[in-house]
Formats: sequence, structure tokens, C-alpha cells
Amino acid sequence: MVPSLSSSDNNGHVSSTPDTCSDNKVVPVSSIAAALAKPDESPYYIGFEKVRVDEYHNVSNPEGIIQLGLSENTLSLDLLKEWLNKNLNESLSQGSSDGLINVDKLAPYQQFDGIMELKKVMARFMSEVLGGGTIEFDPLQVVLTCGANPANEILCNCVADPGDAFLVPAPYYPGFNRDMKIRSTVELIPVPTLSSDNFIVTIEALNIAYDQAKKQGKNVKGLLFANPSNPVGNMFNKETLQNLLNFAKEKNIHIISDEIYAGSRYGDDKFISIAEVVYPESIEKDRVHIVYGLSKDLCIPGFRLGVVYSWNQDVLTASKKLTRFCSVPLPIQQILLSMLSDGKFIQDFMKTNQERLRKRYSIFVEGLEKLGLGYVKGSAGLYCWVNMGRLMSSQDEKGELELWDKLMNIAKISVTPGGACHCTEPGWFRCCFARLSVEDVCLTIERIKRIVESVKPKCCGCQCDRNRAK
Amino acid sequence: MVPSLSSSDNNGHVSSTPDTCSDNKVVPVSSIAAALAKPDESPYYIGFEKVRVDEYHNVSNPEGIIQLGLSENTLSLDLLKEWLNKNLNESLSQGSSDGLINVDKLAPYQQFDGIMELKKVMARFMSEVLGGGTIEFDPLQVVLTCGANPANEILCNCVADPGDAFLVPAPYYPGFNRDMKIRSTVELIPVPTLSSDNFIVTIEALNIAYDQAKKQGKNVKGLLFANPSNPVGNMFNKETLQNLLNFAKEKNIHIISDEIYAGSRYGDDKFISIAEVVYPESIEKDRVHIVYGLSKDLCIPGFRLGVVYSWNQDVLTASKKLTRFCSVPLPIQQILLSMLSDGKFIQDFMKTNQERLRKRYSIFVEGLEKLGLGYVKGSAGLYCWVNMGRLMSSQDEKGELELWDKLMNIAKISVTPGGACHCTEPGWFRCCFARLSVEDVCLTIERIKRIVESVKPKCCGCQCDRNRAK
Repeated sequence: MVPSLSSSDNNGHVSSTPDTCSDNKVVPVSSIAAALAKPDESPYYIGFEKVRVDEYHNVSNPEGIIQLGLSENTLSLDLLKEWLNKNLNESLSQGSSDGLINVDKLAPYQQFDGIMELKKVMARFMSEVLGGGTIEFDPLQVVLTCGANPANEILCNCVADPGDAFLVPAPYYPGFNRDMKIRSTVELIPVPTLSSDNFIVTIEALNIAYDQAKKQGKNVKGLLFANPSNPVGNMFNKETLQNLLNFAKEKNIHIISDEIYAGSRYGDDKFISIAEVVYPESIEKDRVHIVYGLSKDLCIPGFRLGVVYSWNQDVLTASKKLTRFCSVPLPIQQILLSMLSDGKFIQDFMKTNQERLRKRYSIFVEGLEKLGLGYVKGSAGLYCWVNMGRLMSSQDEKGELELWDKLMNIAKISVTPGGACHCTEPGWFRCCFARLSVEDVCLTIERIKRIVESVKPKCCGCQCDRNRAK
Repeated sequence: MVPSLSSSDNNGHVSSTPDTCSDNKVVPVSSIAAALAKPDESPYYIGFEKVRVDEYHNVSNPEGIIQLGLSENTLSLDLLKEWLNKNLNESLSQGSSDGLINVDKLAPYQQFDGIMELKKVMARFMSEVLGGGTIEFDPLQVVLTCGANPANEILCNCVADPGDAFLVPAPYYPGFNRDMKIRSTVELIPVPTLSSDNFIVTIEALNIAYDQAKKQGKNVKGLLFANPSNPVGNMFNKETLQNLLNFAKEKNIHIISDEIYAGSRYGDDKFISIAEVVYPESIEKDRVHIVYGLSKDLCIPGFRLGVVYSWNQDVLTASKKLTRFCSVPLPIQQILLSMLSDGKFIQDFMKTNQERLRKRYSIFVEGLEKLGLGYVKGSAGLYCWVNMGRLMSSQDEKGELELWDKLMNIAKISVTPGGACHCTEPGWFRCCFARLSVEDVCLTIERIKRIVESVKPKCCGCQCDRNRAK
């Protein structure tokens, strides 16, 4: 039996040995398959399914559901298209003597963990995006994976044994549950944060969670977080990162820092990578691992390029061997090698894309403000973390899910409720805005307005939150 | 702790909790990482490393090691190159209104398990290659993965829990150990076959292995094999497949049939897929799963396209969710969609490629015959299963490894010794011939001759095997 898939995933349909089911002709599947074969119960995934069958389109389905639940950026696909049309053939002809497509660099087997040329330009790109041009990243510490999901899983495999646990400041990205739990079967322990702290985790909360886990006999192996935060959109400052590293040092555990939104900034703050605060002594670096990828910052989730970056030699060696299960196809590597080597394109793309993100974000939060809805001031990411608590009939999980349902079925917008992100304060929703045209941002605000206007103020008429929508 | 990585992989470097190693500042890694961080001891992988630093090239390194250890086919890359040069841009512009590259079909997120258009043409292609044009494959049963390695692993995850076991007729593909064991931690139980049976497994041997495993308390969950056989190169006939299915039915276990070489035929025999013998009743089909992919039959391992094909709905649903870790990039899917839809190209390619394989095979075995070396008459695959027992100083594992070393360091050819494939009869070697020009096949035979000629006959002078090299 596989330990610690969540109990709701794991009841019923338990596999049994042939000997014990000779009357039952159906061949048993594994515990993992039995759990995964069940319908997803998280609103995060239910939302995807609802959108899939009725997605909004301004012409073909104007009454459909607007997708704010998927963290995808389509704002700069025009730039990507232009580059591909100009450079695709050349990128696939590198090194050929006849100027034609160089099949010798595309078709054969290669090291599963990526070609060194791409690792070199990826390290340079990470130095710029994660390190602000001042921190060096070493190509020898880069392992390429087919998307960031396997990068997360691989690090999980390398750091934790089945049944071990990670501390994860919550709210956190719902996908961590799948990346880290469906096959690796580690436990993710949410560490609560407060809106009054802007949802930034405190060392006190980490200590409490750690001590509690130890008391329960759990083997905490690491601290996992996204920086920039997903779903909140803010970033850790240097002091906080230093404190997190000290905490990890004290407990002798690992840190996995998911920095996949580092280049998707729309605020003015400087991003600080965990790479900037690791001590020069190898012993500290050994516990630090970064997940990166191009899905968000270059708007190409369809290209599936993820990165494990680690200072730990055992983790690197093991990660490389595990890429046999998630190796990046060579044509993709060659295209991205050319793209990342094109300094002018990359610089222009990042600048323009960030400007566009900033514009969408501004229009969206302006609309929220007009509706009297609160939000956390974000710096990066493709989403905004919105407080809709005052639109709920009750300040609890039930009220949150009811509102989520109303947003989906009345307002026709799909968002991610905070509960799906293990947020302990009800009423927060992640709204992804980077797939929307300016017009569709305005339409989204209009649709939320339907719900706002349908909510009758319930309090005494004072100037509290509940009355601000009047 | 993870069970059943081989004991030699797993000793030393055991992870421990922070509490027990407060004096040891090095942060512990997982059992998987600790095992994988050690050097590979299998000659299969040592061979790769040796070739990597000193690979033969007819011009730049004529004294280097000729790679016969890698099952790769480069014989028809010219056809692939021609097709790509003609069709690449069109394949990536499908559905665009301006004739330019259609970035909307390449950049965004898609279902992780593959686009339906590609599943449809893949099902048709499998009907041709695996089903001889008479068996239908259903696109709804196709799950696309980034190479066949994750397809193997996913099926393993879906069928077996950690610690469960598979019966695997041996000799078997050394990579199964990595695909099925390094992360899934199932046990592979080799079921011995005999040269006198052409290394085709018998039901008697399966029953003995099954009973023995049960006695040892093992939970046998499936039967895993490659058909066409890797490393032997022959194929199961219909009767054998029927017997294997009956055996699986009797024990109520799964069958995973790896058919990745089905289109790489060089003999005259018709290939019979397990799909051809599954009963019409769903209860039998539920236990049968096929692994396929384009790495071998279309000579494109660099494109990383694998397939899980199953009749079991739970396995399909679970497999689809697990493709979040091995999703095929959209540009690759679009290129292969165009390629597989190009019926004339595919037909010509398969025909020409098979002719070229046949030619290489013929020259190679002709050379072996001249040297007086035995081999199993193959039908498919990119390799020949050669008996070099008479060149060994002793008829055991030690003698086999000594000869492997001589072949590597004196003859300068890298081959896979049978021991690495769990073959119980010493003296057999897998020799991959599909990366060699005709000249290099002849050079390989010349190099083997060096060893043949250095071997003094040791027996009495009778007409036994040992004297045939005189």
C-alpha cells in the first residue's frame, strides 16, 4: 500500500492480491491508480472541467465561462510568433553544413538531462531573471526537465522518502499536491499565514508547525514555497529569505524554492532569489534547490521546459538519472537554445511582457477597487489574490464554496477559491488575469459586479466592509 | 525507506532524521537519491560512459570504440531530414489564418495526455504497425507520454504498489530495471529461458517462478515482456501470446507488452500484437496494456514520443493524470501529427527503413557466420543476439565480463553482455547494428575477429564448438 494519499482519495477500491479475490474477476489496479481514477473533488480541477465544456470566447461563446483559474499568460504570443516565424528554421539548422534542418541534432538519443549548450544559456538567463544580473548560475547545476511539474516531483523524490513531510506556507499553489503527493506520497503540511502579515510566513508559525509535526512522529524533510508567491503574488524580501534559510539550517532540512514566476513581474520591487542568500559554505548550499521553467516567464507552457537547479551533488546526480522519465525533446531544446541566445529578443520580450502584465493588473485591481473589494498588492505572477469575503453568506469554507459556485454559474467566471490553496482565512480567491484582453478584464469586473450588487448589506449600516458595496 | 532497490545500490549513505545526525552537518537526501548518486555498476551503463569519452568516428576517431550497446537506428535519417525540410513549417502552421506559424497551437497549456488529433493518427499508425492493418486501435485508449520510459513507469505505477513484483522473461531489456525500479520500487523477477527454446519463455517456467515468488510472500501483479523481444530479436507467435494471456487470467495478474520494435522488422515473419489475442470480453482486456513509441520505428528517440495503450479505464484515467510529469510538448505533437498523417511518407519510410535494417542485419550475421559465431535468428529490433561463449576463458559470469572487457578495450566495440539482461546462460551478447554504415559493420566484424583469432582452442581437438574458430 502507498502511504499518505489523502484519505478522501484513498478509501474504497483498495487493491487486493489475486488469492483473496478469486471470485472477483476484475483485475486489481494499484492504490495510486485506484485513487487517481476517482473524480477530482478540488474546485481547482472542477473549475478546469467546467471551463473546458463552456469556455468564454468573445465571438463564438460570449456567454461562456471566463477562465481566471488557469495561470497562463497569452499576452505576448504575438512576439513569440514573430520570433518563431523569423528564426525557427535557422534554430533547427544549427551546425548543418547545407543550411538545411540538422536532423543529427534532433533525432538521436542525447543525455536525458539536457544538452550542455542549452544549460549554458539557461544558466545565463536565470542569472538575469532570478539573479538580477549579479548572481551567477552554473550550467553544471542545471538539470532540464519536461516542464516544472516533473522538476518539483524529482526534487521531492531526491529529498524525501515516502511518508516524509514538507512544511509549506499556505495559501499555496494547489498543483503542489499533485506534483508532490500523487506519486511521491510525501505529506505537505500547510503552515498558516495571515492576511495581516500579507500572507508572508513567520518563523514562529514554522516553528509551531515543525514541533507539532515532530510530536506526531512525522519526519519533516524540507520547506517548500513559491517565490514569487503563488497564489498571493508578493515576494519574499532578503531578510525573510535569510530567516527561512536559518530555520532550515537549524532543523537540518532542505529548501525547495519554486521561482517560476521570477520574470513575470508587474510591480516595482526587485526579485530576490534564494540563490542570493545561500552562504558561500557548501554545507548551506547543499540544502537549497530551485525550481524554474519557461512556461510562465516566456509564455510557453506548451513547450514544456522546466529546470531543477541544485547545489547538492547527490541531488544533481540523482535528478539527472530521473530525467529519463521527463527528458526534453531535442527539437524543443534547439529552438529554445536559439531563442535564449537571442539577447535582444529576450530583453525586449521580457520588458514588453512585463509592461503588458502591469497594464492588465492595473485595470483589474482598479475594477476591484471600484467594487469595494480588497486584494493583496502583488508584485509578480499572473494572478491577483482577491478578498471577496464580504460577498459570502457565511465566513467559512461553506460560504466560500457557495460564492465560488455563484461566481462560476451566475457571474460565469472561474476562479480558484482560497480553500483549494489551503488558505485558513475564508473569502480569498486567486484570479488569473494574464489570458484576458483589456476588454475581457472589464467584462470580468462587470460580471463580478453582478454578484456584488446581489449581496444585501447585512449589518447595522455602519461603515464596516459589508456596507462599502452600497 | 524505499523497498527493493537492489541491495548493492542501497547500502551506505542511508538517510537519517535531523534528530539523529545533529553532529553531522550534511543534510540527508532521500534513499532514492542516495542510491542513484552512486556510480552505475551495470556494464550496460558503464559501456555508455566508455563510449561517451572515446566514440568511434570513421574520420575523426577511427580508433575509437564502436557503439553496439545503444539500440538506436540512424539508418533512415536522410528520409526524415527530407520530410522535415519540406514539411516543418506547414506542420507548425496548421490552422493559422495567415499561413504563418500558429503559436496558439504551440504555446498554451493543453491536456497533458496529448491532443486528440495526434491520438487519432497514432491509433491509425498503431493499427498498421502493430495490428497489420486488421486490428483497430481506439484513440480514446491512447495516452501520449514523453518517450517510452515514462510509459513503462506509468503502467508500473498503475498496476503495482511499491514492493509488488512482475515476472519478466529473461533475458530482458536492461532499461526495464530503471524504468520500473528506480522510482516505482517494484521487483522484477527474471523468468529464465533457454537457448534451446530460442529464449522463448515457457508456461512451465512462469508457473515455477510464480509459485516460488508466492512462497516467498511476494505479491506478483503482472507479467512484463518486450515483443519483439529485446535483446533476442525474435517475436512471440499467436499460440504463445494466447498461453501468456491464459496464464495471466489464471493468476489474475496484468500483462504489460512493450511493442516498441513492432515496426522495426527485418525478417519475413508477421508481427502479432497482444492486441490481436485479447478476448472480446472486457474482463480479459482489462488486464492488458501496451507500451509503444516512435523512438525505434521512426528513428526519432530525440523527439520523445511514447504511448500507453490500455483497455482498463482506471489505468487510462490514472495514466492521463500522471502525464503531468511527462507531457509531450505541443510543437512536437504538431510535427508528428503532420508526419503520421502523411500516409505516403510513412509507407515509404517504413518500407525503406525495414529494407535497410534487413541489409545491415544480413551483412552482420554473415560476418558472424564466417567467424563461426552463433546467433539467434532475429525478426525485428535493432540488434542481434550473439553467442560468443566459445571466446570466453570460463563459461560463467566472470568469463562473460572478461570477454566484454576485451571486446571493449581490445576489439574496441561496446556490446551488452547477457548478464546485464539477466540471461542465465553465459556467453550471449546484444549487438546493435542500426547505427552502423555498411563499412562499419564490416569493421566491427574485423574487430571481433581480433578476439576470435586470439582464442586458442582448449579442448581435445574434437568437432565441438571450441574448435570451430580454427
